[in-house]
Amino acid sequence: MIKIGVIGYGYWGPNIVRNLNGIEDVEVVLLSDTNPDALKRVKKTYPNITTTTDYRDITTSSEIDAVAVITPVFTHFELVKNALENGKHVFVEKPFTSTVKEAEELIELAEIKNLKIMVDHTFLFTGAVRKIKELIDDNVLGDLYYYDSVRVNLGLFQYDINVIWDLAPHDLSVMDYVLKDEPAAIVATGVDHFGRDLENIAYVTVYFDNNMIAHFNVNWLSPVKMRTTLIGGEKKMLVWNDLEADEKIKIYNKGVKIDTKEGLYNLLVDYRSGDMLSPKVAHTEALKVELEYFVDCVINNKIPFNDGQAGLRIVKMLEASSNSLKNDGKLINL
Amino acid sequence: MIKIGVIGYGYWGPNIVRNLNGIEDVEVVLLSDTNPDALKRVKKTYPNITTTTDYRDITTSSEIDAVAVITPVFTHFELVKNALENGKHVFVEKPFTSTVKEAEELIELAEIKNLKIMVDHTFLFTGAVRKIKELIDDNVLGDLYYYDSVRVNLGLFQYDINVIWDLAPHDLSVMDYVLKDEPAAIVATGVDHFGRDLENIAYVTVYFDNNMIAHFNVNWLSPVKMRTTLIGGEKKMLVWNDLEADEKIKIYNKGVKIDTKEGLYNLLVDYRSGDMLSPKVAHTEALKVELEYFVDCVINNKIPFNDGQAGLRIVKMLEASSNSLKNDGKLINL
Amino acid sequence: MIKIGVIGYGYWGPNIVRNLNGIEDVEVVLLSDTNPDALKRVKKTYPNITTTTDYRDITTSSEIDAVAVITPVFTHFELVKNALENGKHVFVEKPFTSTVKEAEELIELAEIKNLKIMVDHTFLFTGAVRKIKELIDDNVLGDLYYYDSVRVNLGLFQYDINVIWDLAPHDLSVMDYVLKDEPAAIVATGVDHFGRDLENIAYVTVYFDNNMIAHFNVNWLSPVKMRTTLIGGEKKMLVWNDLEADEKIKIYNKGVKIDTKEGLYNLLVDYRSGDMLSPKVAHTEALKVELEYFVDCVINNKIPFNDGQAGLRIVKMLEASSNSLKNDGKLINL
Amino acid sequence: MIKIGVIGYGYWGPNIVRNLNGIEDVEVVLLSDTNPDALKRVKKTYPNITTTTDYRDITTSSEIDAVAVITPVFTHFELVKNALENGKHVFVEKPFTSTVKEAEELIELAEIKNLKIMVDHTFLFTGAVRKIKELIDDNVLGDLYYYDSVRVNLGLFQYDINVIWDLAPHDLSVMDYVLKDEPAAIVATGVDHFGRDLENIAYVTVYFDNNMIAHFNVNWLSPVKMRTTLIGGEKKMLVWNDLEADEKIKIYNKGVKIDTKEGLYNLLVDYRSGDMLSPKVAHTEALKVELEYFVDCVINNKIPFNDGQAGLRIVKMLEASSNSLKNDGKLINL
Repeated sequence: MIKIGVIGYGYWGPNIVRNLNGIEDVEVVLLSDTNPDALKRVKKTYPNITTTTDYRDITTSSEIDAVAVITPVFTHFELVKNALENGKHVFVEKPFTSTVKEAEELIELAEIKNLKIMVDHTFLFTGAVRKIKELIDDNVLGDLYYYDSVRVNLGLFQYDINVIWDLAPHDLSVMDYVLKDEPAAIVATGVDHFGRDLENIAYVTVYFDNNMIAHFNVNWLSPVKMRTTLIGGEKKMLVWNDLEADEKIKIYNKGVKIDTKEGLYNLLVDYRSGDMLSPKVAHTEALKVELEYFVDCVINNKIPFNDGQAGLRIVKMLEASSNSLKNDGKLINL
Repeated sequence: MIKIGVIGYGYWGPNIVRNLNGIEDVEVVLLSDTNPDALKRVKKTYPNITTTTDYRDITTSSEIDAVAVITPVFTHFELVKNALENGKHVFVEKPFTSTVKEAEELIELAEIKNLKIMVDHTFLFTGAVRKIKELIDDNVLGDLYYYDSVRVNLGLFQYDINVIWDLAPHDLSVMDYVLKDEPAAIVATGVDHFGRDLENIAYVTVYFDNNMIAHFNVNWLSPVKMRTTLIGGEKKMLVWNDLEADEKIKIYNKGVKIDTKEGLYNLLVDYRSGDMLSPKVAHTEALKVELEYFVDCVINNKIPFNDGQAGLRIVKMLEASSNSLKNDGKLINL
Repeated sequence: MIKIGVIGYGYWGPNIVRNLNGIEDVEVVLLSDTNPDALKRVKKTYPNITTTTDYRDITTSSEIDAVAVITPVFTHFELVKNALENGKHVFVEKPFTSTVKEAEELIELAEIKNLKIMVDHTFLFTGAVRKIKELIDDNVLGDLYYYDSVRVNLGLFQYDINVIWDLAPHDLSVMDYVLKDEPAAIVATGVDHFGRDLENIAYVTVYFDNNMIAHFNVNWLSPVKMRTTLIGGEKKMLVWNDLEADEKIKIYNKGVKIDTKEGLYNLLVDYRSGDMLSPKVAHTEALKVELEYFVDCVINNKIPFNDGQAGLRIVKMLEASSNSLKNDGKLINL
Repeated sequence: MIKIGVIGYGYWGPNIVRNLNGIEDVEVVLLSDTNPDALKRVKKTYPNITTTTDYRDITTSSEIDAVAVITPVFTHFELVKNALENGKHVFVEKPFTSTVKEAEELIELAEIKNLKIMVDHTFLFTGAVRKIKELIDDNVLGDLYYYDSVRVNLGLFQYDINVIWDLAPHDLSVMDYVLKDEPAAIVATGVDHFGRDLENIAYVTVYFDNNMIAHFNVNWLSPVKMRTTLIGGEKKMLVWNDLEADEKIKIYNKGVKIDTKEGLYNLLVDYRSGDMLSPKVAHTEALKVELEYFVDCVINNKIPFNDGQAGLRIVKMLEASSNSLKNDGKLINL
């Protein structure tokens, strides 16, 4: 049995509490939020959880083993640091921190204190992403050519971060999880339409050393919701449409072989087009699986794969995107 | 009645000849191709058309009024120039030329000679694009936020140009046609996977002075074919899916109003979500309409809207994309 | 404030209890189920609800005003009758009863006792069905030609009823609600593949006096889930796809005018094809709206439109379907 | 080389002539149509084909080997009979004849004369139907439960036949081709909305002895075009959507096992849900393949599988449907 305190009960917090509450070995004992209305909602649904407006009640509580930080990103550094300093394991909302420097400092602190950090990259616990990782690990796709993701919809506008920091962490963390290669450089373009100095539409290209390319299209102003990722490999190509109820992943036996020896005017391209397979994908609730994994890591002293280092790798790409945006699409090496 | 000679009978040429042949006032009298097999195919279907392997037979023929140049882009300058010098009107495949300089020289030559140039931007003659232009001209969408296009499929790899020069002219010419604003700068990223020094996947961002942004995703290595353009405006937003049989255009009464006065923590966003309308779109064959328009422009001495200047505007963006690609995504001002 | 007892906590019961629990003026005080495991689940989520294995504890409780009967249809008659005899208002799962005779007896009993019966035709409270009714009431579709529904998926096989009694009540109740006309006769076909004497695939045609036709395709053995209804009218035609996230209803300005005067060989048909409109549809939870309406009807002594009579009309069509099935597709007049 | 005469140049005739014209071993020498405009159109596209308004010029021509009858069904008997009597092989539009009696007489006549009849069931020559037959022949689907087809769209209204005779022959002939079992009985329902005594919406159920059931939904008044067939088997289930560009066939590893031993209240159903496979399907033009096959059968004296007997089997089902419709959905044994 571990006892957990939760900081933040806004948009995502209720999902965290509901899922933690469903885990056998967990007791959510304390919850803080600066908004009294949020605390009222907690009390109504979970009469047994004590509430407070001061997060320090949680980080300093002697009965608490771990803290879930479910607050805006600009608060993560202070809250996680305080929790770690007080000896608590930390589950923290994505993106991990606002800067690379902050992430590095927290990772170091956790190491010194021998504490776990887990960054909430929920998608890594979906059946679809697990299946994609399995396919790539088994070399079903062959050498990879590209990773191309579209994540667009109408809002929700965030007041403190741009659309890249809001939406791209999902896709960057999936890419980071399923690919073996490390990104080398980033170019980002985008625009802010509302005078807030926070882009609401943006495009991020990630270059890899081995000629792989990745691209992320994120947009808060789309009339339609899209969640589509294409992964092209030498042997197979894959489309992941997360909005499909049943056929989320489709694997295409399609490809191209190019014979370049023949000279300029005789380009010989062999297009291969075979069957398409949509593998069965597990329908488990990702957040439930993730939180059980967090508890398992804490209790059994395991290092989670979505640890501070994983969070840092995403923040590095986000920070590089921001630098590129500020410099007219300049290529930023990672 | 005008008499037309056609240079080039490869992938697109047969469509040109078939449609020209169906026009009352037109006679296709002469066709050239360097490939004898192509000429055989012409003879079989059109026994009345004379064929030749030397395009000069066409450009110097005294009975010919106009020439259709349906060849790879690197040949356009020489062929079009020769046709103009010999007093022929010209219909030329997109993209107009390989460089801005070439386009400007041809435009000047046509003006001196008082001849028409029409660049084959076929999409401008589809019912869907006509409808989009009408909606924007009537200010149905309001001030525009973005233009976001995806044009991906498996192949056809071109031996002489990259994927931007091959696929993006369609979308750039549509954007050029429907928007009133002029592009200001371009950032392009992309990669070549086959050691040909010709990108097969690329992403182009076009900035406008008024905060409009455009983006083009072109890819010869996609397992699925996509032809989707989103146009977001202040009043309405539009999705054009050219692969839909019947509902090619959908207009969403969706939008966002942001009240930024309230300070950092109280971002007030009002999301509007109303009906969706899919207007009826004419089902005419675009190429037929375009070629009839070409004949009309020649006979009645009209300046086509898809003239050399229109072709030049597209080539400017293509050239800038190439420059940006060569310079690691550097912003290229137009 | 009214106090409600719930009989049955199987597949649908938890949704009833959760929604009743969320209504201000309602207290769920007592719940019965013959399955002790079900009662344990109730206790875990709702510690304040008293549980029992004997439904008579509910029907005879003096503190209870109304009873929700959420059990298999073959139990409805006994349970509802007992509740009515003990002076309780009744909310009862669809279909209302197993026979027309049972339904008529219960309606009579409720009238004598001055009690409400509401049959749980949840779909009538969805935004989509409300919109369809509004469109038909406003004569947007014009005179109706047909109502054609497909409701197929893999399972859930019911042990006590065939696929018509399981799936068709949804569509029959929607049709009953949105149409003004009364059905005249029924033909049903179908088959049982598992030796259970309960059809798992069936087709029901409903004839109307005015040449309207309705058809229902229900199937427990479909590899794909479909929930599609076409309603064809003289002025407009409508497609309701309940699986669409956003565009559930599409109204087509399509139609046909036939001039039959011209004689056999000159059939003049004028096909009209105009815009398509997908109206905004409310996203409320239907069951919540329905249960609030039930409470409102009880407290304010209103007759619900989905009362026993509505339930009876559906049972009449179900019973006729069964008769037709037993008689090789014989036409059964209603 | 065989010489063919074509009778009828209406909606479908031009496709027949175009494809016959493309076959090496064929010469279309003569074409008849009662409509002079049709003959003008022939002359324009095919100057070498002689035209006539009298079909007897074709059937009695000594240079002609085979006749293609592409006319309304009520003319088939007279035309085909006349052609056979004059010693011509016959390719005839579907449905074969207006009655079973006519079909039987023509089959007998062809046998006596040692001539071929091929009924134009074009779909049997598509890549999709070939693949479905292959899957069923290889027992990939296992024992079959059902065949469920929807073929609906707006028009084209036929002046001489109802919607079943117009649209259902496609699906009935596919079912006849891919299934091994013979239909046992038919129930049909439907309605005519335009006072023509010809149903424009209809539903046909076909019973088989082994508990297989088939159903056909045909409708000339649908705002959307649908071409979807579900085939459910014990081992696999298949969806054929002919409107899909690339993934026309999807094979679902889904199924149900029911243990009925456990008694009424303990229905044990085991739902199986695995991968979905969309096999590659050939993209050849079906009509071209079919006509080449016709020529092959004539030249090499082969009996086509889509011969008069195949045509007769479809006419039997159509005639039974008409009988059922006239008798209020009465079950008609085949």
